Amino acid sequence: MAADRQIDETIRRALDEDVGPGDVTTTAAVPATARASAQAVAKQDLIVAGADVAARVFTLVDDSLRVAIKIPDGSSGTRGDVILSVTGPARSILIAERVALNFLMHLSGVATLTRAFVDAVAGTAARIIDTRKTTPGLRGLEKRAIRAGGGHNHRYALYDGVLIKDNHIRAVGSISTAVRAVKAGVHHLLKVEVEVTGLDELDEAVAAGADAVLLDNMTLPDMAEAAKRYGDRIVLEASGNVSLATVRQIAETGVHLISVGALTHSAPAADVSLRFLD
Amino acid sequence: MAADRQIDETIRRALDEDVGPGDVTTTAAVPATARASAQAVAKQDLIVAGADVAARVFTLVDDSLRVAIKIPDGSSGTRGDVILSVTGPARSILIAERVALNFLMHLSGVATLTRAFVDAVAGTAARIIDTRKTTPGLRGLEKRAIRAGGGHNHRYALYDGVLIKDNHIRAVGSISTAVRAVKAGVHHLLKVEVEVTGLDELDEAVAAGADAVLLDNMTLPDMAEAAKRYGDRIVLEASGNVSLATVRQIAETGVHLISVGALTHSAPAADVSLRFLD
Amino acid sequence: MAADRQIDETIRRALDEDVGPGDVTTTAAVPATARASAQAVAKQDLIVAGADVAARVFTLVDDSLRVAIKIPDGSSGTRGDVILSVTGPARSILIAERVALNFLMHLSGVATLTRAFVDAVAGTAARIIDTRKTTPGLRGLEKRAIRAGGGHNHRYALYDGVLIKDNHIRAVGSISTAVRAVKAGVHHLLKVEVEVTGLDELDEAVAAGADAVLLDNMTLPDMAEAAKRYGDRIVLEASGNVSLATVRQIAETGVHLISVGALTHSAPAADVSLRFLD
Amino acid sequence: MAADRQIDETIRRALDEDVGPGDVTTTAAVPATARASAQAVAKQDLIVAGADVAARVFTLVDDSLRVAIKIPDGSSGTRGDVILSVTGPARSILIAERVALNFLMHLSGVATLTRAFVDAVAGTAARIIDTRKTTPGLRGLEKRAIRAGGGHNHRYALYDGVLIKDNHIRAVGSISTAVRAVKAGVHHLLKVEVEVTGLDELDEAVAAGADAVLLDNMTLPDMAEAAKRYGDRIVLEASGNVSLATVRQIAETGVHLISVGALTHSAPAADVSLRFLD
Amino acid sequence: MAADRQIDETIRRALDEDVGPGDVTTTAAVPATARASAQAVAKQDLIVAGADVAARVFTLVDDSLRVAIKIPDGSSGTRGDVILSVTGPARSILIAERVALNFLMHLSGVATLTRAFVDAVAGTAARIIDTRKTTPGLRGLEKRAIRAGGGHNHRYALYDGVLIKDNHIRAVGSISTAVRAVKAGVHHLLKVEVEVTGLDELDEAVAAGADAVLLDNMTLPDMAEAAKRYGDRIVLEASGNVSLATVRQIAETGVHLISVGALTHSAPAADVSLRFLD
Amino acid sequence: MAADRQIDETIRRALDEDVGPGDVTTTAAVPATARASAQAVAKQDLIVAGADVAARVFTLVDDSLRVAIKIPDGSSGTRGDVILSVTGPARSILIAERVALNFLMHLSGVATLTRAFVDAVAGTAARIIDTRKTTPGLRGLEKRAIRAGGGHNHRYALYDGVLIKDNHIRAVGSISTAVRAVKAGVHHLLKVEVEVTGLDELDEAVAAGADAVLLDNMTLPDMAEAAKRYGDRIVLEASGNVSLATVRQIAETGVHLISVGALTHSAPAADVSLRFLD
Repeated sequence: MAADRQIDETIRRALDEDVGPGDVTTTAAVPATARASAQAVAKQDLIVAGADVAARVFTLVDDSLRVAIKIPDGSSGTRGDVILSVTGPARSILIAERVALNFLMHLSGVATLTRAFVDAVAGTAARIIDTRKTTPGLRGLEKRAIRAGGGHNHRYALYDGVLIKDNHIRAVGSISTAVRAVKAGVHHLLKVEVEVTGLDELDEAVAAGADAVLLDNMTLPDMAEAAKRYGDRIVLEASGNVSLATVRQIAETGVHLISVGALTHSAPAADVSLRFLD
Repeated sequence: MAADRQIDETIRRALDEDVGPGDVTTTAAVPATARASAQAVAKQDLIVAGADVAARVFTLVDDSLRVAIKIPDGSSGTRGDVILSVTGPARSILIAERVALNFLMHLSGVATLTRAFVDAVAGTAARIIDTRKTTPGLRGLEKRAIRAGGGHNHRYALYDGVLIKDNHIRAVGSISTAVRAVKAGVHHLLKVEVEVTGLDELDEAVAAGADAVLLDNMTLPDMAEAAKRYGDRIVLEASGNVSLATVRQIAETGVHLISVGALTHSAPAADVSLRFLD
Repeated sequence: MAADRQIDETIRRALDEDVGPGDVTTTAAVPATARASAQAVAKQDLIVAGADVAARVFTLVDDSLRVAIKIPDGSSGTRGDVILSVTGPARSILIAERVALNFLMHLSGVATLTRAFVDAVAGTAARIIDTRKTTPGLRGLEKRAIRAGGGHNHRYALYDGVLIKDNHIRAVGSISTAVRAVKAGVHHLLKVEVEVTGLDELDEAVAAGADAVLLDNMTLPDMAEAAKRYGDRIVLEASGNVSLATVRQIAETGVHLISVGALTHSAPAADVSLRFLD
Repeated sequence: MAADRQIDETIRRALDEDVGPGDVTTTAAVPATARASAQAVAKQDLIVAGADVAARVFTLVDDSLRVAIKIPDGSSGTRGDVILSVTGPARSILIAERVALNFLMHLSGVATLTRAFVDAVAGTAARIIDTRKTTPGLRGLEKRAIRAGGGHNHRYALYDGVLIKDNHIRAVGSISTAVRAVKAGVHHLLKVEVEVTGLDELDEAVAAGADAVLLDNMTLPDMAEAAKRYGDRIVLEASGNVSLATVRQIAETGVHLISVGALTHSAPAADVSLRFLD
Repeated sequence: MAADRQIDETIRRALDEDVGPGDVTTTAAVPATARASAQAVAKQDLIVAGADVAARVFTLVDDSLRVAIKIPDGSSGTRGDVILSVTGPARSILIAERVALNFLMHLSGVATLTRAFVDAVAGTAARIIDTRKTTPGLRGLEKRAIRAGGGHNHRYALYDGVLIKDNHIRAVGSISTAVRAVKAGVHHLLKVEVEVTGLDELDEAVAAGADAVLLDNMTLPDMAEAAKRYGDRIVLEASGNVSLATVRQIAETGVHLISVGALTHSAPAADVSLRFLD
Repeated sequence: MAADRQIDETIRRALDEDVGPGDVTTTAAVPATARASAQAVAKQDLIVAGADVAARVFTLVDDSLRVAIKIPDGSSGTRGDVILSVTGPARSILIAERVALNFLMHLSGVATLTRAFVDAVAGTAARIIDTRKTTPGLRGLEKRAIRAGGGHNHRYALYDGVLIKDNHIRAVGSISTAVRAVKAGVHHLLKVEVEVTGLDELDEAVAAGADAVLLDNMTLPDMAEAAKRYGDRIVLEASGNVSLATVRQIAETGVHLISVGALTHSAPAADVSLRFLD
């Protein structure tokens, strides 16, 4: 594939932001002819995501840089491991360093947290999925990091899936009305998911023809009951107050999907630094 | 001031990402004529940042929406407080909701964490400052959130301040060489900061004419010694392994600035949701 | 709603294309102070689409122009009818004229042809839908024109619906393999449609779990048989060699959807001209 | 020449429109390692235009695709002929397919219709030319397709040629006034064409110094008279109600140019499909 | 007319360049609530051009600023005259000041030099015109400044006029060949100008059908002879080594146009400063 | 380094401006297969700047062109010297010619004038520096040309250096107030420069903690006194009414920097032309 145009644009924007008219320190301190080698080194155990993005940062700054990815996206690394190495003009490495690390640390943070949730539900049938609570401007990259961590993606955006939420229902009056209106209005390749807060609403949503339901902040027993009633007919997504402490119990209720906003909005960055070699 | 063009562009990109060719659910479920009022409500105690950005998201989606900010940037809110309210076409509110909250939750998360660090050093002379470890594409907004939280900003980017880091020094050979080269090469309105890892390097940096030094991962006693030797002559910035548990001790060594990467790269989102009014 | 940003961008591109550094004729011939009124008049019977786009062309050229839409999108007009009127600086009307008409004529052409197909299947249960065979750069506007003509939309693009076509099947080996792979790979809100060329493939697709099938160039008896076998379980879309002469017979086979590429790629422009009033 | 930047931008916009965040079907169904060969095959007799544009679509999606053009722009093809072939990653071919065909079918449609008009006037001195009634966003490509079909181009846009139309004259008061004003106002390398509707206006335009006249909807005898009076002194362009049935008679009146809006606004797409090879 | 989109884009680029992430001095020194009034004052006699552009800089920075133009484009000002005044938030005026003056000083410089040439040929039939030797990115604005100074414009760019230069002729072999090829290739509304260096070439160009000739660096007697031979049939443009000292003699040879590259590439800026009122 | 993205964008804008939809003369006159060689030749003595920019113009128009730079930026050339040569398709050279020369002539003009000022102060300790009085859109390139001419750069823009000017002081009330506010508000790596008009203000600025002062239009004796009082403690910049006639005297007062707006806003273009070889 050609270089991904949207990712390139995201990287260029980050470089514009950080480099702008030039890196005054590097230009003044380091001769144009100096060459260097450096390694991005994990300072903690992590699941790597964004290694290719970080590599691309280096080559967009200077296409004569040679970058080798040692730990590809989706693989795990241990504190001290080299994730990627880069060789070429020292100035170019120094200029690209921070932006490359900013992507790599954030996306690996997302993947690492995702993996923790995925591991917590191992052996159950439940999948960990993301939400639309993503960092503005980084949705595509964060969706990739979720997959690198072993999670799955929810719809990408407002345009490729129907999710009737509480506020839609409130605006329209009832679940049935909302489902009917949507089924008549969207194209024939979209399923319809409805947010419900209890078993009564669940029954109403299923009766109205929902293909999937989002069980919002429901109790474990209610989720189990939902799975018992409809688990073989429609998709059940649990959402709300999901943490590493609670996620396994939720999975064991029999829901199919567990969505976790924190994967993208609250994952701490994974610690990675760039080490110059002598 | 006119609407900030760079912030608008960042918002538009986020809307393109989330709305694209259209919100299929809302368009199908909610009549074009329906009107609604809604409130962004804090689900936790927080310091607000990005309230104006969230408000702008609503008006960029639909300039007939009326938005009122109840808790402005830099003020604190308590769980249950209304941060902003919005009234107008229900469709427009539903379409803008997620992007508005994504900005507000992320930026308030940054401000809230910043305030915790600022409070921890209260009474000392030290300032909490940010780093260039920001989320790609959001630097300007995150820098504002830092200030909303009571922190101060480090340089904005590679172009508006000189910071000679370990990798520069390694590429050039010595601190003195690097400082000399930079002083000759940059314009006369930029100061020069040098990263040092011990007292010997500190002495060398000061002798070479550094205006500021970054004390990288130095021990508390060494930081205190640094402050004793040079605290009245140059700016001392502590950096590395700064946490809420350690920051006050660091501040009490007498350093002037304490930079914390986690403020921007690892702040958990503040929990805020949009509540429709009946 | 605020002015649609994507439509505005499409209009601006068309204006850049046609006006560029300036209309040399109008600037030289017509005084800046001259005012005029003009009407876009139908030169044939038509279904209007793009009246608001044409109106927006005028106001993007000069926001002091006053435009009144007389026949809104989706309504029919008769030869001689006024679709919209515009009043203001004569120069601005002359500069905007051609671009405004180019949009209005093309989109009304699409709507008019769509209505002919819709009328031809009146009284049957079949819906007329569009395809991805749209004019590069105008998909969103053409999709709207389809709806103005009484048609419905297929998926918008490659990202909001699954359609496994002959070439996918050929690349993978079998319908079953392709359907299975897709069901495992896409998010839970997307249905799966499969292109089939005969009843055997249809059976295989349904058995593999397809939610919809595209019957490609099948005979009328085979389409009727398909409807008999699966019409109450899955969505049946007829495609290929659909013309005004054949569409009703196809609709009467019991298929649910009939897709017609010609609606967007071969609709002749509707004839509209701009008449200046004295 | 370097790749044409404007054409590339038009293609990228079409790809954004159709591919957006990704082709969900292809990504899920087809392995990243699968390779394929395919051919764009004419399903009707046609004049090819846009073969290079279609080829560029493939290489912009994936620069490892190898494309060979078999029938270049301006050449004719017969039903069943291969216009271009492409080899490489199957995913990339599938992703690019529709956009490539959309360009090729539309532009070949324009060229094919143009050739029909050109053939109809063969042996006369008249040239078939286009108008500004082009598809918004595609003017440059349509102008090329006109030439591929053997036609010639009128002015490109409002900025590279003077054409005083009925509405200019109405705004100014008289043909003479308009011509005089324009001759004084435009730079010395632009000729002046005037639209006239009868022989009296023609005389006035010529007397006022017009370099060319557009004979709007004039009768055949009047056009012949116009040619007799002025055919050796100024350029005569016939326009209005030109069809394949009438164009030869018009050409035989002795006019130099015959402009046909339908070439760009109403040409049916030429039928071309992409056939995967086993 | 709506605000000119191309001019706005040029201004925004200049503001991005100068203001970027913010004016650190003004933000730190001046309270957000401070208000001020200021005047752009001529420090020399000049012809004003770009007053509206400067005004637009202020309102693009802050649409609450009130700007009044005292000397419009094309009018003369005397040392000490106020060209425009602006009132509103002091910060906004300070931020916009330099960019506004940079446009105003450059464009007024162009207009002032143009007027000097125009005055030098007063009473002759010759017009002073510009060339394509403009400042990259500012052609449209410089063309306006030329007109403000009383000059006329040559073709705008490579696409709206034919000028066969020495290098074209060298590439093709002869003037006649070049003229013939161009006449067959360009649309019917473009005239053809040819660069000649002597009377023989002039004769050849006229015989080949040139509509205009550029007399390149010809002697005064030769220019006079050219005017005598062809001055009533074709347009004669003198070019090369034109200065204020020589331009009148050139005009008196009878040429119609005198093009002066220095008007745009070497006009010294007119001196204007912004004076804050107490 | 990769091609500079900002410079490329500036070049592309200039090409769009000059070439737009195409060079009608060259396309019609010169066969696509014709090849040529040409040389950019100095028509005057000059300091070259922008040779690489001119070279890039050629390769952005056609990447098959081969360009060799004979006189690199910062070197001097004599009338008749070849600055660069280019070989390849004749059409491409002709299309790129004017834009390439416009950059080269303007930037070499800036460098040449800068060198004259630098030479005038040779042997003194003063440096010649630029201002923010640059041509809108060309700041980065003009800053490079200043360095090519042997000058140094002042701050790049409003964001990378503090300069408190007369209008700031007037808005705030006093030099001391302004300096204090700025020192508290900007980050710790920015120095503070203050504009003063006399020795009293100078004393106040220094007392308030200014790191540098701009001596605005001060007399030679006052500048000498300023240097005597503070020359070894802070940076002294002379500004205002600096010409080649006066600059040496100013330098001899002992100021460190002399800023000259004319370097960028009033440098006459250096004369360069493109000569085709047979």
